[in-house]
Amino acid sequence: MARNSPCRPLGRIALAVSALGFILAAFELPSAAAPPDGVLGLMPVPESVTVREGRFRVDDGLAIGGPGPATSRAFRAAARFMSRLAGRTGLFFKQDFLAAQDPARQNGIRYAYDRAGELLPNEDESYSLTVEPGRVALTAKTDIGVLRGLETLLQLLSADEAGPYIPCVAIADKPRFTWRGLLIDAGRHFHPVDVIKRNLDAMAAVKMNVLHWHLTEDQGFRVESKVFPKLHQLGSDGMFYTQAQIREVVDYAAERAIRVMPEFDIPGHSTSWFVAYPQYSSAPGSYAIERKFGVFGPAFNPADERVYPFFDAFFKEMAALFPDPYLHIGGDEVEGHQWEANPAIQAFKKQNGLADNNALQAYFNKRLLKILTKHGKKMVGWDEIFQPDLPKDIVIHSWRGPKSLIEAAQRGYQGILSNGYYIDLCQTAEFHYLNDPLPQDSPLGDREKALVLGGEATMWSELVTPETIDSRVWPRTAAIAERLWSPAAVRDVDDMYRRLGLVSIELEELGLLHLKNVDMLLRRLLGRPDIHALKVLTQAVEPLEGYKRHGQATYTSLSPLTRFVDACAPESLQARAFGKKVDRFLAGRDPQLAAELRTTMTAWKDNHALVLPALAASPALREIEPLSMGLARACGAGLEALTILMKGEGRPAAWAEELAKVLADAAQPAAHAELVVVAPISKLVKACAGEGQ
Amino acid sequence: MARNSPCRPLGRIALAVSALGFILAAFELPSAAAPPDGVLGLMPVPESVTVREGRFRVDDGLAIGGPGPATSRAFRAAARFMSRLAGRTGLFFKQDFLAAQDPARQNGIRYAYDRAGELLPNEDESYSLTVEPGRVALTAKTDIGVLRGLETLLQLLSADEAGPYIPCVAIADKPRFTWRGLLIDAGRHFHPVDVIKRNLDAMAAVKMNVLHWHLTEDQGFRVESKVFPKLHQLGSDGMFYTQAQIREVVDYAAERAIRVMPEFDIPGHSTSWFVAYPQYSSAPGSYAIERKFGVFGPAFNPADERVYPFFDAFFKEMAALFPDPYLHIGGDEVEGHQWEANPAIQAFKKQNGLADNNALQAYFNKRLLKILTKHGKKMVGWDEIFQPDLPKDIVIHSWRGPKSLIEAAQRGYQGILSNGYYIDLCQTAEFHYLNDPLPQDSPLGDREKALVLGGEATMWSELVTPETIDSRVWPRTAAIAERLWSPAAVRDVDDMYRRLGLVSIELEELGLLHLKNVDMLLRRLLGRPDIHALKVLTQAVEPLEGYKRHGQATYTSLSPLTRFVDACAPESLQARAFGKKVDRFLAGRDPQLAAELRTTMTAWKDNHALVLPALAASPALREIEPLSMGLARACGAGLEALTILMKGEGRPAAWAEELAKVLADAAQPAAHAELVVVAPISKLVKACAGEGQ
Repeated sequence: MARNSPCRPLGRIALAVSALGFILAAFELPSAAAPPDGVLGLMPVPESVTVREGRFRVDDGLAIGGPGPATSRAFRAAARFMSRLAGRTGLFFKQDFLAAQDPARQNGIRYAYDRAGELLPNEDESYSLTVEPGRVALTAKTDIGVLRGLETLLQLLSADEAGPYIPCVAIADKPRFTWRGLLIDAGRHFHPVDVIKRNLDAMAAVKMNVLHWHLTEDQGFRVESKVFPKLHQLGSDGMFYTQAQIREVVDYAAERAIRVMPEFDIPGHSTSWFVAYPQYSSAPGSYAIERKFGVFGPAFNPADERVYPFFDAFFKEMAALFPDPYLHIGGDEVEGHQWEANPAIQAFKKQNGLADNNALQAYFNKRLLKILTKHGKKMVGWDEIFQPDLPKDIVIHSWRGPKSLIEAAQRGYQGILSNGYYIDLCQTAEFHYLNDPLPQDSPLGDREKALVLGGEATMWSELVTPETIDSRVWPRTAAIAERLWSPAAVRDVDDMYRRLGLVSIELEELGLLHLKNVDMLLRRLLGRPDIHALKVLTQAVEPLEGYKRHGQATYTSLSPLTRFVDACAPESLQARAFGKKVDRFLAGRDPQLAAELRTTMTAWKDNHALVLPALAASPALREIEPLSMGLARACGAGLEALTILMKGEGRPAAWAEELAKVLADAAQPAAHAELVVVAPISKLVKACAGEGQ
Repeated sequence: MARNSPCRPLGRIALAVSALGFILAAFELPSAAAPPDGVLGLMPVPESVTVREGRFRVDDGLAIGGPGPATSRAFRAAARFMSRLAGRTGLFFKQDFLAAQDPARQNGIRYAYDRAGELLPNEDESYSLTVEPGRVALTAKTDIGVLRGLETLLQLLSADEAGPYIPCVAIADKPRFTWRGLLIDAGRHFHPVDVIKRNLDAMAAVKMNVLHWHLTEDQGFRVESKVFPKLHQLGSDGMFYTQAQIREVVDYAAERAIRVMPEFDIPGHSTSWFVAYPQYSSAPGSYAIERKFGVFGPAFNPADERVYPFFDAFFKEMAALFPDPYLHIGGDEVEGHQWEANPAIQAFKKQNGLADNNALQAYFNKRLLKILTKHGKKMVGWDEIFQPDLPKDIVIHSWRGPKSLIEAAQRGYQGILSNGYYIDLCQTAEFHYLNDPLPQDSPLGDREKALVLGGEATMWSELVTPETIDSRVWPRTAAIAERLWSPAAVRDVDDMYRRLGLVSIELEELGLLHLKNVDMLLRRLLGRPDIHALKVLTQAVEPLEGYKRHGQATYTSLSPLTRFVDACAPESLQARAFGKKVDRFLAGRDPQLAAELRTTMTAWKDNHALVLPALAASPALREIEPLSMGLARACGAGLEALTILMKGEGRPAAWAEELAKVLADAAQPAAHAELVVVAPISKLVKACAGEGQ
């Protein structure tokens, strides 16, 4: 039985959500000696949180249970909860949490729900959580709500001198958007089942509910087809999911109340299909799996009547394999050259009054829509599929900008947003976090707003492998998950970052490699364990943002993604913290902050000497010399500036020009990456211009 | 095309194998500035190595190829080789190494073999490898030899100022033993397919060739049976391998030329079977999956005639699922209580003249043998199955000691050794390394020796989960792999450890978690990223050896294995290096060594103050306070002793007694672990007794 601390109810101090953000932000990142109260670590932030006095003690007598058999989805989720709780606390729980629950007991953690939830948009995912000193009550309309609430409960875990506890709270929570997705592109690089599973676990931890599985691309056809086995046999280099594996993933996701929506990207992005079936392409010739990245010519031939029975049989098979009512047909970036060059297609366009390639693709989509409808699926597609005469149950997936989402809603179509959530581009969590599917200035009315179902983070995989994908997805995607779950008013960026650091560590227990593979990648490059200096350098470096990295080399799907740039996080939280500290210092010239900046910059400056032996040992590391030297030089400039600023002395303009040159040099990309701390250091140098004049 | 450095042949300097060990040992661990020549990193050491002058340059023009289509096992292995080579060098190879090879080209890496190897004991795994400046030739009797040679070639990768290269060598190599196995116990803790796969990759990297898959235990029945589905449905908590997954693993292993031998442990160790089929046990009543560990009563009833048709149908199904000709029936540790207590069994024994339980089990085994033979399988079992009237194609698996192996061979039976290779017991790599299936003083004649097929490392899983299993298996199992592959004379322990550190890092590229999960485990316990002090403490600490840890708490299969002890490596290489340094210092009082020991002990002593905030933050870490404080105190004593030794001063006996008490306290187990650096520190203190007297 759980021992509990005595409780003096404070009454209900309801914290408005925006107030919660404010209060959270007021806390400094607690020191190692003071473990944070779990309420301060919640992510996504719940709709409403009432903090009470008292603590629910967690000890080895803790038991959990609710209605239904031990094989129910809710109890299996409870078992995973107990296992993770044991993992964090080291407690040997007495309950056999895999097989036994005692529905009669009233203490411990009790959950209840009215019905099993369905894996459909707009299903009820709400829950209420009441933690009292003697008991925890988690109630929901559906078992899905119970699953969401268990994740909140786990994040509440706290500790004091007496041991682990859960703070007394009352939480009422529900999602703002019903479609909170992560796209994983298994086409450009294949990601085996274990990668998908651990990312599903992570999605569940931040309450996401749609895995958008991008399964076919120019670079690979990734699903076993029993109807057309040549598709995966010839189109995948042997890297595909068997149907048994697909079912395994779908079941695994369903256990976590996550939908799995497959994408078969057609009519473009389809080279790998034509390795087996060149006859369905729009140009003659044999095809090989594409190794490069970009937008390629091969496209299905909408004018060839044989194409439709092929898709009919194919989608019949896939419709049975994937239970989700939605099926994504891609439809993006049809390059058009093959269509232009094919006289039969041009004749077909004329014959059918199809003015341009857009009209031709619209024709193709309408034929496809019939096929999908026949097999019980609703169509989802990228921006390009949008055309006014489609039925109203299709979903427009906006990748080019919010405009198409607005237009679709205004015309009565449902939409989901991915523009602004392209996590492959190595942008900041802040950028994604502030990108709202329904911003405050949205021109849409309430009814139209209801058509905006949510959004999806998109993990395009040109530059990620199973070794690096987790670090490209997490923890930044947790910020997107919060945007899609939490109330619109929750948008305190600094507080989001504070919690992101905590959640990032919590996610590791699910098997994610986002933190630990940094060391692994560096060890492999160095061939020995002493990677400290390299790791220090990663603090100041990020991969080139946007599509800039693609411009640095001709990447193919066989290129190694094992270099220093791949070990660097898309966003360095240390660099961000440094930049924030520079801003605070410049605002007030606090000597304590100056001392801290001096310590950091001195360590970075001195690091170059420690990096040099690594460069000698490893040819693969030699490309980072400009980064390491640039950091040392930039920090030299920064330290000089700091001294000047603290003394209040002036310097001639030539001095500033000299340093500006050093900093401009240091800011140059190298090894497909860049030093992101040059910008804040430049602020220090620029600030000197105003000194002593 | 690969650029190559000019070559001046040195003639052939054949290094005898024992000489190689000596020469290798003469090299100090190279500094980070001087990358080691790959020849010095080979593990297992080949049968013969001839080092020549010259370097084969590795650049992006490197191509690999040989006979057979790109879908052959050898070329697929070559593709993995190229991918790993790209990963280590960062090179963007121009060859499409997944799909295309050019059998006509003569430069680059060329492999050749006479025939596809079979996955059977005594298959030819030999290979010859000739590296010249212009080309690499790898030839073998079978494609299996090519696979083994590719692993050697990858280990040869070296670097100099001009970039990566492979040193010119001629290697002729073949295994000493034909059975080089790793047992993974998926019964006591389930280990999903990805765990098995990454361990198969690691096995292949050190040339092991048998996965012994322990699939049933009191704690779980881990295989889907379509004939008796209740077995996995009721006996596994939902944690079992589907037959599709089994086939996936078998295929994956075969791709790496590794046999998969399943074990179904009967008639004891079988509680989980009886959850579904209590009628086949030897005592009435319903059964639940066992959660505790140990030797339990439930056993199949050899006197019940219904048992044999059940096994007939079951093994028919399993024989078809697992292609290996050998099937392991366990047979160990039949506790006997159920048999003693069952009057029908006692009557049966009398009736059939079975003097005791051993005779009863022998009867059972003979019935089983018929069933296995009928389904085309040869029987393997633990020591206990050995009885004189069995056919000569069975294999005795020795776990209790080398005696049974010797006896079996003397009577004409084949055997494999696991006694001395129990890697779950957290013993040293040295201990396992020097444990030889055929020691120099073996009483066996040559013909009998040929019956000793090899050995298996056994990863029993009472105290390991998918998070920690890799660190319990690797890198120590590489030492066992060398014992089983390399010539008997290769037994330089220090040199083995030097190479073990290199191989450990190489293994990471295969997805193993043995190094990187240390940090993960510590981060979870602390809930934050600043784990440095905890990691320093792990250098001095090892889990309790042997079965001592089991005595510290009642572990069950649901207990968390996420504590500090689980983050500690079974053998701390830093602690070993420290102990070696103490020995070297005591032998010569070298002031440089004294200074190094002082630095290390000062860091360990000061670490306690850094650990304290972590203890405050995390209740789960508080148990390590005695270890951290003990390390500080022991190092305090060690530093004092070091000062005395350097000054040559004496101290009264009371002083030594006082310190001995401090050290004895520090040596006490805590948190299921112990400080392994107390022993070398004690040597320093004891040495003071001889000073200044």
